[in-house]
Amino acid sequence: MMTKEALTALILEKKEALSLSWEAIASGIGLSPVFAVSACLGMNSLKEEPAKKLVTLLELPADALAALMACPTKTWDKVIPTDPLIYRFYEVIGVYGPTMKTLIHEKFGDGIMSAIDFSMHIDKEENPAGDRVVVTMNGKFLPYKSW
Amino acid sequence: MMTKEALTALILEKKEALSLSWEAIASGIGLSPVFAVSACLGMNSLKEEPAKKLVTLLELPADALAALMACPTKTWDKVIPTDPLIYRFYEVIGVYGPTMKTLIHEKFGDGIMSAIDFSMHIDKEENPAGDRVVVTMNGKFLPYKSW
Amino acid sequence: MMTKEALTALILEKKEALSLSWEAIASGIGLSPVFAVSACLGMNSLKEEPAKKLVTLLELPADALAALMACPTKTWDKVIPTDPLIYRFYEVIGVYGPTMKTLIHEKFGDGIMSAIDFSMHIDKEENPAGDRVVVTMNGKFLPYKSW
Amino acid sequence: MMTKEALTALILEKKEALSLSWEAIASGIGLSPVFAVSACLGMNSLKEEPAKKLVTLLELPADALAALMACPTKTWDKVIPTDPLIYRFYEVIGVYGPTMKTLIHEKFGDGIMSAIDFSMHIDKEENPAGDRVVVTMNGKFLPYKSW
Amino acid sequence: MMTKEALTALILEKKEALSLSWEAIASGIGLSPVFAVSACLGMNSLKEEPAKKLVTLLELPADALAALMACPTKTWDKVIPTDPLIYRFYEVIGVYGPTMKTLIHEKFGDGIMSAIDFSMHIDKEENPAGDRVVVTMNGKFLPYKSW
Amino acid sequence: MMTKEALTALILEKKEALSLSWEAIASGIGLSPVFAVSACLGMNSLKEEPAKKLVTLLELPADALAALMACPTKTWDKVIPTDPLIYRFYEVIGVYGPTMKTLIHEKFGDGIMSAIDFSMHIDKEENPAGDRVVVTMNGKFLPYKSW
Amino acid sequence: MMTKEALTALILEKKEALSLSWEAIASGIGLSPVFAVSACLGMNSLKEEPAKKLVTLLELPADALAALMACPTKTWDKVIPTDPLIYRFYEVIGVYGPTMKTLIHEKFGDGIMSAIDFSMHIDKEENPAGDRVVVTMNGKFLPYKSW
Amino acid sequence: MMTKEALTALILEKKEALSLSWEAIASGIGLSPVFAVSACLGMNSLKEEPAKKLVTLLELPADALAALMACPTKTWDKVIPTDPLIYRFYEVIGVYGPTMKTLIHEKFGDGIMSAIDFSMHIDKEENPAGDRVVVTMNGKFLPYKSW
Amino acid sequence: MMTKEALTALILEKKEALSLSWEAIASGIGLSPVFAVSACLGMNSLKEEPAKKLVTLLELPADALAALMACPTKTWDKVIPTDPLIYRFYEVIGVYGPTMKTLIHEKFGDGIMSAIDFSMHIDKEENPAGDRVVVTMNGKFLPYKSW
Amino acid sequence: MMTKEALTALILEKKEALSLSWEAIASGIGLSPVFAVSACLGMNSLKEEPAKKLVTLLELPADALAALMACPTKTWDKVIPTDPLIYRFYEVIGVYGPTMKTLIHEKFGDGIMSAIDFSMHIDKEENPAGDRVVVTMNGKFLPYKSW
Repeated sequence: MMTKEALTALILEKKEALSLSWEAIASGIGLSPVFAVSACLGMNSLKEEPAKKLVTLLELPADALAALMACPTKTWDKVIPTDPLIYRFYEVIGVYGPTMKTLIHEKFGDGIMSAIDFSMHIDKEENPAGDRVVVTMNGKFLPYKSW
Repeated sequence: MMTKEALTALILEKKEALSLSWEAIASGIGLSPVFAVSACLGMNSLKEEPAKKLVTLLELPADALAALMACPTKTWDKVIPTDPLIYRFYEVIGVYGPTMKTLIHEKFGDGIMSAIDFSMHIDKEENPAGDRVVVTMNGKFLPYKSW
Repeated sequence: MMTKEALTALILEKKEALSLSWEAIASGIGLSPVFAVSACLGMNSLKEEPAKKLVTLLELPADALAALMACPTKTWDKVIPTDPLIYRFYEVIGVYGPTMKTLIHEKFGDGIMSAIDFSMHIDKEENPAGDRVVVTMNGKFLPYKSW
Repeated sequence: MMTKEALTALILEKKEALSLSWEAIASGIGLSPVFAVSACLGMNSLKEEPAKKLVTLLELPADALAALMACPTKTWDKVIPTDPLIYRFYEVIGVYGPTMKTLIHEKFGDGIMSAIDFSMHIDKEENPAGDRVVVTMNGKFLPYKSW
Repeated sequence: MMTKEALTALILEKKEALSLSWEAIASGIGLSPVFAVSACLGMNSLKEEPAKKLVTLLELPADALAALMACPTKTWDKVIPTDPLIYRFYEVIGVYGPTMKTLIHEKFGDGIMSAIDFSMHIDKEENPAGDRVVVTMNGKFLPYKSW
Repeated sequence: MMTKEALTALILEKKEALSLSWEAIASGIGLSPVFAVSACLGMNSLKEEPAKKLVTLLELPADALAALMACPTKTWDKVIPTDPLIYRFYEVIGVYGPTMKTLIHEKFGDGIMSAIDFSMHIDKEENPAGDRVVVTMNGKFLPYKSW
Repeated sequence: MMTKEALTALILEKKEALSLSWEAIASGIGLSPVFAVSACLGMNSLKEEPAKKLVTLLELPADALAALMACPTKTWDKVIPTDPLIYRFYEVIGVYGPTMKTLIHEKFGDGIMSAIDFSMHIDKEENPAGDRVVVTMNGKFLPYKSW
Repeated sequence: MMTKEALTALILEKKEALSLSWEAIASGIGLSPVFAVSACLGMNSLKEEPAKKLVTLLELPADALAALMACPTKTWDKVIPTDPLIYRFYEVIGVYGPTMKTLIHEKFGDGIMSAIDFSMHIDKEENPAGDRVVVTMNGKFLPYKSW
Repeated sequence: MMTKEALTALILEKKEALSLSWEAIASGIGLSPVFAVSACLGMNSLKEEPAKKLVTLLELPADALAALMACPTKTWDKVIPTDPLIYRFYEVIGVYGPTMKTLIHEKFGDGIMSAIDFSMHIDKEENPAGDRVVVTMNGKFLPYKSW
Repeated sequence: MMTKEALTALILEKKEALSLSWEAIASGIGLSPVFAVSACLGMNSLKEEPAKKLVTLLELPADALAALMACPTKTWDKVIPTDPLIYRFYEVIGVYGPTMKTLIHEKFGDGIMSAIDFSMHIDKEENPAGDRVVVTMNGKFLPYKSW
C-alpha cells in the first residue's frame, strides 16, 4: 500500500501541475478546506466518497484510494514547534490554557472539549488596519462522568 | 509590590466570598471574559480604568492596583500540558498545525497570525446531541517583509 | 478554599484514624473504588451527593465540600513514571500501543477510545500459581468525523 | 536473517493481498488477536507452532520463520505518544496511576502487576449511545520479597 | 502518618547517635544489608517482624512502625544519575545492556530478569592490587507467554 | 576500515550460518561470554590474539581484524532504555543506587567501583520455582584521593 | 517543486563556481545581506522580483524560481545551539533577556518586539584593539491590547 | 553576605518607593541602562564606584555593596523562554543564527563575536506606523587561532 | 549531622568574616586550592587531618568535622551549564572530546583517563596581551581489560 | 565543495593507508596534535599553509584544500556524552565547575576563560603505578566589562 508520506508528495506534485488551490480541492471533494488539507497532509482519513473524488480530481493512481482511506498515525516531531506561524498557536495555548480551562468549567462544568468530535475553520477578515486571521474551533463538550 | 501570584490568590478568594462568576467580573470591568480571566490569573496586565474597577468590584486592597497593571512574565511549567482540557488544544496544534500553516499562506501569503494583536472568545453552542465549545481566535496577519 | 492537596492530606489522615479501607469508603459514597480513590487523590471532582456523603463519612470540615466538587487540574510530574507499579502500565502502552491502535481501528474504524467518557475497575483474580491483577478499562469509541 | 521491520512490512503486504483481517490471522494461528498482532508488529516472538502456521497462512518465505521466533528488542520512539488513540491510554496512566497503585496495594499488598506474565484483550461493547472499547489487562501479581 | 522522608531522616539520626553500622542494623533485624538499607532509605517496605525489631533497635517512636511497613512510591530525580558511584552502574547498563539481553535470551529464551522477585548483595573482595567491589544480582527469570 | 556496525552485522550473519552459540564463540576465543559478546556487538575492542581467533572461527574477511581491535566509541540511543529486559536493570539502579552508594562507602570509604577495570558474568541458577538470572559485577574500588 | 534544501545546495555550489560573495549577491538582488542570505539558506521567501534577479545572477534553473518564492517552514534542530558563534547569541538572550524585557516595558509599555516586522544588519567596526561585530535588530513594537 | 536574589528584591522595592526609572538609576551611577539593569537583576557585577553610587542612590544597606560587587552565577531556568518578549529573540537566533554565522565568517574569517567583551543598547525609534525597538549588540570579534 | 549545604554556607560566612582567601585556606590545611575548594563546596570529603585543621582555621563548630569527612553525593542541576565560565569548559568537551579520545587512544591504547584518581590545578599565566588561565588535569590512565 | 564529513572520512582512509600516526601528521603540518586532529575531524579550519601541507602529506585531492579551510559548524549529538572517555571529562566539569569558577574569580576577578583564544595539549606522564594522562588547557582570561 502506498504510504501516507508518498501520498502527500504525490498530491502536492499533482496540485502544482494542475494549478489547483486548496480551496478548489476542498470544494471539489465536498469538504471544508481544513479537513481536506489535513487529509492530504496525511493527518486524517477520508471516507470513500470524497476519497474517490480526490483520486479523480487530482488524477491519482488507483492505489491512492486505500491510502487516503487508511487510518493515519498522527505524529509530529517537534514537542515545541519552531515555525513561527505554528509556534504562535502553541504560545496561545501556554498563555491562555488556564484561562480556557477556567471559562469552559464555568460554562459547562467539569469536562473537556473533544479534539475528535471537532471541526475547525480558518477565515480572512479584511481590515484596513491589516487583515486578520480568524480561527474557529468547535468541539463537543465531554463531561467527566463518575462510575 | 504585591506579586502576581499573591494577587491571583486574593482574587480567587474574593470571587468566592462575593459569589461572583467570571462572566460577571468581566462584564463589571468592561472586558471580555477571556481577557479578564487571563489578567486575573496573572497572564495579562490591565489598563488603569479596568484595574480600578476590578479593585472596587472585588474589594481588593489599594496595592493591588499596581500589581494588576504590571507587565507580567508569561510562564508555564509543562512543555506539554498534562491536564486533559488543555492537552486537547495542544493536540489540535500538533495535528492541524501544518494544515493551518498551509491555509493561512494560501489565503494571506507568507506571514503569521499575531498572538499579541489578538483576541479570543469562548462560547457555548447548545446542541441536543451534546453542547459544543466554540473557541474563536482572531489575530492580525503579520506579513514577512524583506529589507 | 481548601486546595486539593490539603484535602487529600486530610482524607488520608481521617481514613487512617477511622481505619477505613478504600473499598469501604467507595461503597459508603456509592461509587466504584477507582473513581472514589481518584477523587480523594485530587484527580477527579465529586458530584454534590457523594461529596456530602464523603464529608460525613470521613468527618471532614465543611469547606471540604467545595474542594471535593471543584474541577481539578490533572497533573503529574514524571513524564515517564519511576515507580515500578506505574511504570509497568507505561511499558504496556509502549509495547502494545500500536497493537491497540491496529485492533481498535479494525473493530471500530478510524477514531479513539475516550479517556473522559471512561471507567476503570481493578479486580483480584485468585490463582494457585499466583493471584492476578485484572484491570478493565471501558471507554466510549469516538469516531473521527469529517466536516 | 530477515529483520523484524522487514518481516512486519511483508506481513502487512500479504495481509492486504490475501484480504485477511487480524481476527482471522489470530484465529488461524491459535492465538488471541492482541498477542498475534503484537508479534506481527515485531513486539513479541512466536513459538514454533504458531510461527509455522503464520508462515503457511500468509505465504511467507522460509526465512520468516526465524524472524518470527527471534527475541525482539522492544522499542518506541515517542516518550510521550502523539497519536491521539495511544495518547489517551498514556493519559489514563498519568491520571489514574496513583489510584491504581493505591488500590492494588490495598488488595494485594506491596508488589506490582507483571507486564510479562500478562495478557490483554480488546473488545467491542455495543451501545446505542455509542459503542464502547473494553480493554482488559490481566497480569500476575508479583509481591516484593525481602532477603 | 510519618512520611518515608521523615522516617529516613530519623533513622539516620538515630544510627549516628547509637554508632551503629548498616551491617549491624541489617543483622539486628535479620535481613541482608542491601534490603535493610533500601527500606531505611524509603525504597522498600518492611514486614511487621523486622519493622518491630528496627523500631526497638533504633529506639524509634511508635508511629514509625506504620511508616516502615507502608508501600513506598519509588522515585528518583535524575534520569541520568550524576554521582560518579551511581553513574558507573548506569554506564554499565548502557555499555553492556545489549550484551546482557543477548546472553539471557541465549540461556533462558525470550523473557526478562525480574526486578521484583530479586535480591542483591554487595561484597568486598580483598586484592593486593586494590580491593574489588562485587555486586551480585539474582532475579527470577520471567518468560514471555503468549495467549 | 570496516566499521564496527558492519562488523557486527557480519558476525551475526556468520554466527547464524555456522550455527554457533555465543558460549561456543566465547570459548573458542578464550574469553568470557559477556566480554566476547560485547566486543562482537562493537562495545569493546579485542586484543590481537582473540581477534585473530575470532576471524578464523567465524571465517571473517581479513579487514575484520583491524575493526575488531579498534577502540570503539561506546554509545547508546535511549537515555532511558525501553526494552523491558534492559529497563529492569535501569530500574534496579534507580531503586537501589543510593543503597549501593551507602554500603560501598561503609565497606570501602569514599570512592567508586570502576566500570573499566571491571568484569561481569551472567549465570543461570536452576530453581524448581522458576530459574533465576544471576548477574555478577566485579570492579576495582577506586578511592578518591586528595591532592 | 525543488525543495528548499536542494535549492540551498545549488545556490552554494553556484556561488562558489561564480566566486561571488554574499555581499555581492545581496547587492545584485537589491536586498540587505542578512535577508538575502536567510532566503538563500531557506529561512525566508523572496518576492518575485528579487527571486528572478537571483535566478539570473546565479544561473539557477527555471524551477528554482518557485522554490525561492515558496513559504518556508522555519525549523532548527538544536534547542540549544552548539556552534560557539550561535551559542554566544543564545547566551546573550539567557543573560540579558530579563533586562531587555524590563527596559522595553519601561520605554514602550506592555508588549513585545515583533520578530516578523523586523530587520537585522551585521556590521564590522574596525578597532585597533580588535575589530568588533555590530548586530542591529529593528522590530516593530507590538502593544498587548485588551478586548 | 546578602544574596543576589535578596539584593534584587530590595532594589525593586527601593526603586518603587523612590519612584525612580531604570534610566534614572543608570544615569545616576554612570552606566548604560542595559548594564545597570542587568547588574540590578543579579546578572552582572558592579565595580566599586558605581556600586557605591547605587547604594547611595537607592538608600541600600551597607552590606549591599559586597553583593553588588560579587561575581554572579549566571543562570536561567527555561531552556526555551516562554515569555513572548524574550521568546521572539530566541526565535530570531533560531531563524537567523546560520545567517549570522555565514555573514560574520565572510566579513571577519573564522571566529566568533564575544559575549563577554560585549555591550548592548536598546532604543526607541519613533515611527508613525508604530514605534520600533532597536537593539544594538557590539561584541569583539575573537578569531580562532591554531597552535 | 550537619548537611553539606549547611556546612558550605557556614564556611562561606566564616571565610568572609575572617577575610581569608581560598589560597590561604588551602595552604592552611595542606591541600591544593582546587581540592580544598571542592571539599568546602561539598563535592569532596576531607580526611581527618585536613578536616580538623579546617575546623580550627575557620572556627567551625565541632559537628562540622563529621560533615567535612562525610562521603558527598555529587550532584548538579544543569545538564548543560548556563554560567558562561562553566559553559566554556562544557563547550571545550563538546568540540574537542572526539579529539581527546583519538589522541589518548593513540598514546595509551584503549582505555580512559580516571576522573577519580585525578587532580587538577588552575594557574594564572601573566601575559601582556591578556593574562591566561591554565588548567591542568592529571588522571591515571585506566586500560580496558578483557576477561 | 567537499563536505567536512567527506573530508574526515578521506583523511582517516589515507592515514590508515599511509600508516601515519596523528603525531606524525601534526608534526608534518607544523601544528600541535590536538589542533591538527580537531581540524581533521572537522571541528576547526586550517590556515592555507598547513592545509596545503596536509593535502600533500596525505595525498588528498585538490578540492580538499577548500574544505580544510572552510569555517566549520561545530556540532555534537549527545548533550551528555555516553562514551566513557569523554563522559569522564563531562563529569569533571560537573563536579569541579563551581570550584573552577570560584578559583578563577579569586585569581582574575569577574570574567571567564576563553574557549576561542585557547589551546590544549595532551601528554603522557609515565608512572610505575600506572601512566597518567595530562591535559593542559590554556585560554585567555576575558574580563567582563561594564558600559
